[in-house]
Amino acid sequence: MISPSGQDNISKDKKDLKTQELHLNYKPLPGSEKVYKKGQIFKDIRVPARKITLTPSFDANNNTVPNAPIEIYDTSGPYTDSKNPIDITKGLPQLRKPWILSRGDVEELTKTMSNYRIKPMRARPGKNITQMHYAKHGIITPEMEFVAIREGFDPEFVRNEIACGRAIIPVNINHPEIEPMIIGRNFLVKINANIGNSAVSSSVTEEVEKMAWAIRWGGDTVMDLSTGEHIHETREWILRNSPVPIGTVPIYQALEKVDGKAEELTWEIYRDTLIEQAQQGVDYFTIHAGILLRYIPLTAKRLTGIVSRGGSILAKWCLAHHKENFLYTHFKDICEIMKQYDVAFSLGDGLRPGSIADANDPAQFGELETLGELTKIAWSHDVQTMIEGPGHVPMHLIKENMTKQMEMCHEAPFYTLGPLTTDVASGYDHITSAIGAAMIGWYGTAMLCYVTPKEHLGLPNKQDVKDGIIAHRIAAHAADLAKSHPKAQEWDNALSKARFEFRWKDQFHLSLDPETAEEYHDQTLPADGAKAAHFCSMCGPNFCSMKITQDVREYAKKKGLVPEEALEKGLQEKAHEFKTSGSKNYLPTK
Amino acid sequence: MISPSGQDNISKDKKDLKTQELHLNYKPLPGSEKVYKKGQIFKDIRVPARKITLTPSFDANNNTVPNAPIEIYDTSGPYTDSKNPIDITKGLPQLRKPWILSRGDVEELTKTMSNYRIKPMRARPGKNITQMHYAKHGIITPEMEFVAIREGFDPEFVRNEIACGRAIIPVNINHPEIEPMIIGRNFLVKINANIGNSAVSSSVTEEVEKMAWAIRWGGDTVMDLSTGEHIHETREWILRNSPVPIGTVPIYQALEKVDGKAEELTWEIYRDTLIEQAQQGVDYFTIHAGILLRYIPLTAKRLTGIVSRGGSILAKWCLAHHKENFLYTHFKDICEIMKQYDVAFSLGDGLRPGSIADANDPAQFGELETLGELTKIAWSHDVQTMIEGPGHVPMHLIKENMTKQMEMCHEAPFYTLGPLTTDVASGYDHITSAIGAAMIGWYGTAMLCYVTPKEHLGLPNKQDVKDGIIAHRIAAHAADLAKSHPKAQEWDNALSKARFEFRWKDQFHLSLDPETAEEYHDQTLPADGAKAAHFCSMCGPNFCSMKITQDVREYAKKKGLVPEEALEKGLQEKAHEFKTSGSKNYLPTK
Repeated sequence: MISPSGQDNISKDKKDLKTQELHLNYKPLPGSEKVYKKGQIFKDIRVPARKITLTPSFDANNNTVPNAPIEIYDTSGPYTDSKNPIDITKGLPQLRKPWILSRGDVEELTKTMSNYRIKPMRARPGKNITQMHYAKHGIITPEMEFVAIREGFDPEFVRNEIACGRAIIPVNINHPEIEPMIIGRNFLVKINANIGNSAVSSSVTEEVEKMAWAIRWGGDTVMDLSTGEHIHETREWILRNSPVPIGTVPIYQALEKVDGKAEELTWEIYRDTLIEQAQQGVDYFTIHAGILLRYIPLTAKRLTGIVSRGGSILAKWCLAHHKENFLYTHFKDICEIMKQYDVAFSLGDGLRPGSIADANDPAQFGELETLGELTKIAWSHDVQTMIEGPGHVPMHLIKENMTKQMEMCHEAPFYTLGPLTTDVASGYDHITSAIGAAMIGWYGTAMLCYVTPKEHLGLPNKQDVKDGIIAHRIAAHAADLAKSHPKAQEWDNALSKARFEFRWKDQFHLSLDPETAEEYHDQTLPADGAKAAHFCSMCGPNFCSMKITQDVREYAKKKGLVPEEALEKGLQEKAHEFKTSGSKNYLPTK
Repeated sequence: MISPSGQDNISKDKKDLKTQELHLNYKPLPGSEKVYKKGQIFKDIRVPARKITLTPSFDANNNTVPNAPIEIYDTSGPYTDSKNPIDITKGLPQLRKPWILSRGDVEELTKTMSNYRIKPMRARPGKNITQMHYAKHGIITPEMEFVAIREGFDPEFVRNEIACGRAIIPVNINHPEIEPMIIGRNFLVKINANIGNSAVSSSVTEEVEKMAWAIRWGGDTVMDLSTGEHIHETREWILRNSPVPIGTVPIYQALEKVDGKAEELTWEIYRDTLIEQAQQGVDYFTIHAGILLRYIPLTAKRLTGIVSRGGSILAKWCLAHHKENFLYTHFKDICEIMKQYDVAFSLGDGLRPGSIADANDPAQFGELETLGELTKIAWSHDVQTMIEGPGHVPMHLIKENMTKQMEMCHEAPFYTLGPLTTDVASGYDHITSAIGAAMIGWYGTAMLCYVTPKEHLGLPNKQDVKDGIIAHRIAAHAADLAKSHPKAQEWDNALSKARFEFRWKDQFHLSLDPETAEEYHDQTLPADGAKAAHFCSMCGPNFCSMKITQDVREYAKKKGLVPEEALEKGLQEKAHEFKTSGSKNYLPTK
């Protein structure tokens, strides 16, 4: 364990955990409470949501008119359920355990790859236990009903999307703590947050804290990109405390096993790493199997070469041995491992562009084509698969990425890093990325990997993680609106109604980040009275357009022009008069 | 003067200015210096740019290879010229004075509307002194050559764009301190920053400081939206110290004159306000002349009614009198005033949508059509004109705004507020806006009005102003890249090359905000040595993809595969071998 205080083993760290302040906020967000919806098919399903209770509006006669509460998709898991305090040394409840066992197709392992805090399971010989396998056989699983309720779709629709590969539910059987979620372009756009220590900084408890923090603000999945010495232990802590799918890039740990020497990587070391992580419960693996020897020279003239860590490690291996990428040559073997645990593929884009200059080049699209081939193979094993995408792409080249991915990868879900729409904003790449992410989300990307303000500069701290998440939550929701997802606009409407009616507290509570919204308001008008004011600090009472609009309606009412129907009618008469008498009466001539 | 210390007159404030710390940073940005390019036609023209000097690269034999300096468009004026310390009580040098006088078509006024610190001028009787007028008559002005040099275009191209109304150069003859800039879709996308005190907070010196701060970070124009008691004095200070065009919404000051009672506004009060501000030097006026009586009822059923301050004031007036908008009925009179000073129109969108629900509705597009009619009238007076646009618009409805504006408003430049792509992110609306702004900028919008994180919540402080500007600078530059502006990508390429070669200082200096970039880097790896490191804190040495890519190239070189041509050749042979022998050797079968 690398930690600031130099603790160097997990038992030591465990002991410390009991006495140390973890800074995990177990409270719901302000104005919100955790509610659960029950399953129809599977009665033990409890699907979480964030319920925001609203204050009433007032009608023209000053009578209260209630506003229905709003329920928002909630990624934060038990951490925001005030009824369920969490002891992270014990881990979260194993919700899925009964569902997994009831299918009768798994077995507990007696011999495992490493030490785990819960007993690993695996498919019984001859069994395929992936969600895709069940879906193809017409079976609706509890995981499918869970996501159907979560997103407001019919479970059969979910099953069909999974069966044809257009969506995935990343749920390793060894991660029973998970609240299932779905990634596919016909569902809400999801976001991923990366965490992970490195040789240079951060500790295991910090990583758990980052995970809980990331899901509090809306991370749908979390990738653990740790590269330090204690990858296994860090991951164990994260998995046992994570209600969201955890992804990894197994080549990082494999590289640790050969002391960072890419040339010394072997299939056997990599394979064992995959099994170790699959038995631990990792839900999806980034695997750079599409970076072929013939694509590497295509990067030689790039402005920024290969910028994917995994991609560059494999490129180095390929060149050192002058052999084809062993992830490609062993792809079938990898599928055999994945399907025993229901680990999903996240086929890595090792040749994604690292600069505007390198966007959409032959190296990138060559690899994408190979990822399409591999998708077909993965599907033939019923292994759930998504495809990773760029990167740095100027706006006018974004759509081509989506179009080509859909064609070449047979509609498997696309999972992109941004894309960043310019290179010149170091320190603000959560914004350069949110722009591209919103657009590609609208075009059909199913999950957006977040980028923090520290991208290209350093490791993100807690505030950076939050800033990165909120920026990409914005992108995802903007994409949901643009895609006309049935539940998306209801939320915006509720907030805008609250804003227009000066229900300040409701406006704060309905915001993505209620705490910041209230804090910003209070910086200018801190008094509690101001929150009841029918104007705000921006314009003052005489310039408040919302107040004036309300005055207009009020005024019209006094003149006998209400209700608004009448106002409309009365003014339309006037409008008619204008039209028929000709606007020339009013329109100044030259 | 409303100020925190309760000063209440300008002379008192002037005295204080001499002794007080203004927090104006007169230094150039790190690694940058101010340089000037000279005119070819007009020899006294000095066009500013921010020159960034770069450190050398190293070739394969470790010899240094120089990197040419980069020159970036610079909005910051003399404030970042270390050779010209500024005394804001004296104001900036009057660069344009000789150009204006040399045309022989203006006269100094003996009788003025108010007190001014420089003697106001006006067109001599019978003369039209607008840039559009000159352009239509085939005259290239110093202002036109200035912007041509600034953007890398031919002066004749600029003249033609102005003549046909596709671009404007907002330059009131009474604002001789200006460094001319151009707004039009064939030029770099511009951004506007709003400042302005309100009845509730801020002082005049703070507003000047905000202006200098806004242009330091890239504000191309600044709108003074002050609504407090001392509008005139605040504006005087801002204008005399501003090297960028200043815009206002004159109805705000007119409303102050009738104690905030919209019903009591009259054409005469408004007209006098226009003249007062035109004589002071305001470069463009937002005028809500398109909000017609017949459109008002269309807003009655909106979720958020009328959200434009100006729009709601005029709606209130129209309803109170049951008469047509006096800005519309007096539009010709307004043109007569504008053209005497070369004030440009920014035709206001008083009916812009204030929520996703209200986007692209009949009220909004009805007003837009009227703005198109008014554009033709303004042009018949040779008054430069741009059109304001929304607002809150989901991504899939953005393009329609641009298309309709181009059609209805005859290609007059579009100037939009965002648009904000969702309503749910109070506290982060600089991001919801940057997404929409980048897209509409790409589609053809010429200028983006910034939105700060405090939008909808409170008045922005200095940090909010900066955050709003940077977010919209990103949007504007992303749009320039997407539009393939000839100078745009050069900057990204220089930064990405520096990034790839671990020239950390160069990466910082080339960033939009060099200070934040360096500060973020230093938070993880503060040592100066780290800035020379060939890896960074994100991944550590073994996982650094950029380092590995360089190692790959190095490795290939040792094996006799360099230069890169050879690497490419060598590997292509291998690739050929793969292709001919069939990838089935490697591709796993089902």
